[in-house]
Amino acid sequence: MPEYFSEERSVEAVNARMGRDINPRLAEIMASLVRYLHAFARDVSLSQEEWALAIGFLTRTGHLCHDERQEFILLSDTLGFSMLVDAINNRRPPGATENTVFGPFHVEGAPIRHMGENISLDGKGESCLFIGRVLDLNGNPIEGAWIDVWSDNADGFYDVQQPDIQPKWNNRGIFVTGADGAYSFVGIKPVSYPIPDDGPVGQMLASLGRHPYRPAHTHYLITAPGYQKLVTHTFVGDDPYLESDTVFGVKHSLVAPFERIDRPTIWRSDFDFVLTPIEDGR
Amino acid sequence: MPEYFSEERSVEAVNARMGRDINPRLAEIMASLVRYLHAFARDVSLSQEEWALAIGFLTRTGHLCHDERQEFILLSDTLGFSMLVDAINNRRPPGATENTVFGPFHVEGAPIRHMGENISLDGKGESCLFIGRVLDLNGNPIEGAWIDVWSDNADGFYDVQQPDIQPKWNNRGIFVTGADGAYSFVGIKPVSYPIPDDGPVGQMLASLGRHPYRPAHTHYLITAPGYQKLVTHTFVGDDPYLESDTVFGVKHSLVAPFERIDRPTIWRSDFDFVLTPIEDGR
Repeated sequence: MPEYFSEERSVEAVNARMGRDINPRLAEIMASLVRYLHAFARDVSLSQEEWALAIGFLTRTGHLCHDERQEFILLSDTLGFSMLVDAINNRRPPGATENTVFGPFHVEGAPIRHMGENISLDGKGESCLFIGRVLDLNGNPIEGAWIDVWSDNADGFYDVQQPDIQPKWNNRGIFVTGADGAYSFVGIKPVSYPIPDDGPVGQMLASLGRHPYRPAHTHYLITAPGYQKLVTHTFVGDDPYLESDTVFGVKHSLVAPFERIDRPTIWRSDFDFVLTPIEDGR
Repeated sequence: MPEYFSEERSVEAVNARMGRDINPRLAEIMASLVRYLHAFARDVSLSQEEWALAIGFLTRTGHLCHDERQEFILLSDTLGFSMLVDAINNRRPPGATENTVFGPFHVEGAPIRHMGENISLDGKGESCLFIGRVLDLNGNPIEGAWIDVWSDNADGFYDVQQPDIQPKWNNRGIFVTGADGAYSFVGIKPVSYPIPDDGPVGQMLASLGRHPYRPAHTHYLITAPGYQKLVTHTFVGDDPYLESDTVFGVKHSLVAPFERIDRPTIWRSDFDFVLTPIEDGR
């Protein structure tokens, strides 16, 4: 008598159906996904009405996704899943700068700027000198590192969110280090902002009693030959949302000093980035 | 020093963020979902490229959903999740007819037919007399039970899938039992068919070495005052896909006899449905 699906052996019934000549990594992932999804349904004794609500939620989430909006990434971010995957894939030795979420607002091909140049093109916000070095784990400067920087403007929007209002490449730029590994540029002290919260993810956050805000941060993507790619932010230490970032991106080591100097810029933020050498083909 | 998100305490970090005055059932479900989703990512050490593929898969799945197509339900069905939720919510005492998946092809408001009537309106397929009784757990007939029946036609399509080809209400009807609990009607011996496999779920099944077929079955939705709603199928016992139903709907107790009698119909299928009384407000 064949063994059909049953509540007790639901996982085995589904996973036994996989073919033999399939991609072994896909088989591993799907078998695990089935195991954990079924365990979840069992754990909460999910009702059929709740299941139907979830189907509706996923459908609305999918319908909201288009070129300028990725609601599934927001969902992953707000459930801490993106940060967990980032953490699993970017374990670093002590002393190395930590990763955090990439976010949806990076744009390829920002202009390469001279050290010290101002990337805030809309004249808004409080100016800030960002300054520091790119170092290896031994404290030696790294020459030829590409520092790709981006942040919101003083109204809490990235240039790509307001293409009709902000100048192109506002608060974006690439800086390439010399032999001393040093970098410096003028931007603004960034401000906190809500992630798009007019869709299913925003409704979910509201239902969970959570706000949609991210604490103020400046994005960095730093690459150098022979070193692991660093995707990170620096955070403003006095931000009211620092302990409740809605996408869980904050790490102690990424909270940067912002010192009020008033001139030539209003603020100054010193931060050194420490890159990890590539090993084992990473 | 506040405790931020970390790989080790990712679940606690996310779940601690929930507000206090939220729906307690929602809090329970979401806390469990986060726990199992994070455990899955950890279990397989999900890479960022694999995560991105999953985001793309979910997005395409959402984009394919519209009034006549529900790709997320297909996904749930093919991962055995729908059957597990059905099983959790419809545990029945020994002797009671078991539930199985509802499927997407039920239509409200089918015509009420007289016992013995023919519901196959397109003249296709091999005729079959479906006959039996609706009983309680003690074997007593249930009067006034509504038997809502639907099946595909001989080409493997439901009428709603071919509104321009099949007569309206082809292979559908409602039969109401009298004092003897008996029912009988003429339909067709149903045929196996593939679920829609031209979307992401079909691609997933192909990648997993799985076919998209369901074994031949007739759908029943049986309701009677004082009894639990029964959502089930009867299956044709010699179907080649019986042991590999792509949505895992087959149960031993639902495999019905199909006896060749040749006249007045080609086949005859005897099946009694045993309803479970409502208790504890179910």
